Amino acid sequence: MSYGGIEAGGTKWVCAVSDGADELAAVQTFATTTPAQTLGRAVDFFAVHRQRLEGLGVGSFGPIDVHESSPTWGQITTTPKPGWEHTDVVGALQDALKLPVAFDTDVNAAALAEGQWGAGSGLTTFCYVTVGTGIGVGVMANGTLLHGLIHPEIGHMRLPHDRVRDPFDGVCPFHGDCWEGLASGEALRERWGCPAYENSATEAWALEAEYLASGLVNLICTLSPERIIVGGGVINHPGLLERVRVRVRELLGGYISAPEVTTTDGIERYIVSPTLGDHAGVLGAIRLAQLRALQ
Amino acid sequence: MSYGGIEAGGTKWVCAVSDGADELAAVQTFATTTPAQTLGRAVDFFAVHRQRLEGLGVGSFGPIDVHESSPTWGQITTTPKPGWEHTDVVGALQDALKLPVAFDTDVNAAALAEGQWGAGSGLTTFCYVTVGTGIGVGVMANGTLLHGLIHPEIGHMRLPHDRVRDPFDGVCPFHGDCWEGLASGEALRERWGCPAYENSATEAWALEAEYLASGLVNLICTLSPERIIVGGGVINHPGLLERVRVRVRELLGGYISAPEVTTTDGIERYIVSPTLGDHAGVLGAIRLAQLRALQ
Repeated sequence: MSYGGIEAGGTKWVCAVSDGADELAAVQTFATTTPAQTLGRAVDFFAVHRQRLEGLGVGSFGPIDVHESSPTWGQITTTPKPGWEHTDVVGALQDALKLPVAFDTDVNAAALAEGQWGAGSGLTTFCYVTVGTGIGVGVMANGTLLHGLIHPEIGHMRLPHDRVRDPFDGVCPFHGDCWEGLASGEALRERWGCPAYENSATEAWALEAEYLASGLVNLICTLSPERIIVGGGVINHPGLLERVRVRVRELLGGYISAPEVTTTDGIERYIVSPTLGDHAGVLGAIRLAQLRALQ
Repeated sequence: MSYGGIEAGGTKWVCAVSDGADELAAVQTFATTTPAQTLGRAVDFFAVHRQRLEGLGVGSFGPIDVHESSPTWGQITTTPKPGWEHTDVVGALQDALKLPVAFDTDVNAAALAEGQWGAGSGLTTFCYVTVGTGIGVGVMANGTLLHGLIHPEIGHMRLPHDRVRDPFDGVCPFHGDCWEGLASGEALRERWGCPAYENSATEAWALEAEYLASGLVNLICTLSPERIIVGGGVINHPGLLERVRVRVRELLGGYISAPEVTTTDGIERYIVSPTLGDHAGVLGAIRLAQLRALQ
């Protein structure tokens, strides 16, 4: 038996089938357009594999309703993405495919996969941070993906913002200069007038390192992760990860007495890149389906 | 059989004995002086009750080492409190009393007690925040007190700090203007030149509401607690809790789609006062001992 997984991102969806290990038997990627069209393409993909599927997992952009007892479980809720507010993702898939569906955030799914097969292996409390178009964080806390009122929405934390150095108001439609509003790929593009991958301005990346480090420091103070895995397109800028590590140590100021955050060697093993690359999200979605079946 | 508990605070220690319910059979409170003297007074207190004690729990100011496999487990580590760095609290108590000792932060202990008998009853993910001399937060995540690299040190988060409105540099010896550096009772005393309870300046409390709300917004984005319990002397200032609730809703801006943080009624039940009062810490310490014995 196999499981299906969807990394339902705001830019693209990745659909895949697997027997539950970290190799994919079939993969398809397509752009996120309207809910009807995007869900339709996912249904078409899984219909071909339907007979061998035991269940489906979805790691979705959000915010989403993750509480199975809620009448709106399985929906995307207040997203700023046009047309996607209150989309019943799980309902549409269940109706069309007649399969049990597990549902969590895209970043919680990626954290789950990195914990099972990647950079979070053997850990019980860690974070998976993605810095791409937006900023998202998945959280494994004491061995379980973190849910509460809803789920972590760490891209929307408030951080120090020195308007003398950076008068930019931020791009978050809800909060302006929250973490995502100041430091996402979209924020970089708006502030500097070009995509992040074309930006070579020294000040742009000094500022980016500052904001990413501030955000990670708050993660460290709040969740006390055993490791932080940082992926997404923006963090791949040459030298950025190294600058963030240096600045995190400086900002912590020796207060947290652990070699992971007080030594050069330690922090290289503490703030790390993902090991599953682009497939962490969809692998995690498959793992969500598998865990649900094993319950 | 009974259990002993110590709320080992930076200002005072509370020692108590209980059969494991939320009533205390004996209590003694004394000022935190030197490690030797303070630990000695605790040992003297429990020695009287030694025969009926099955174990001892300690909820301590920190940072502390909470990992039982660590060679420095049971110690206070990098505290700014003079004389208390690297104090082996658990070792001293075990040696003198020959009892098993459970050890966590003072605020994690208080969260445990509020979850068992108080405002966190029935919840699996919630926070206990204390705003007193310092700011501390205990975190229950998915039903377990949160530990990772160390434990939450949420008072040391970085927050927006508008130096035009508030040029004060903050009082944290490690970070200056972290949350505790800006909004603790000590910060209020330093900034305004009088103890918080004597301060009636409008701007003082408007600023305090702003900082407390910013910090709680970050807690909500990061941990997604089902409820936030806020205690400590500072929050008792008339009207402050109400202002914080209003400002939290404003800062969230409707992004998190849950009535708990979008409605007036909801937020009154979401950001609440503790129900165990001054004894939450020591009751939680006793519960730590009981849980350890039941393992």
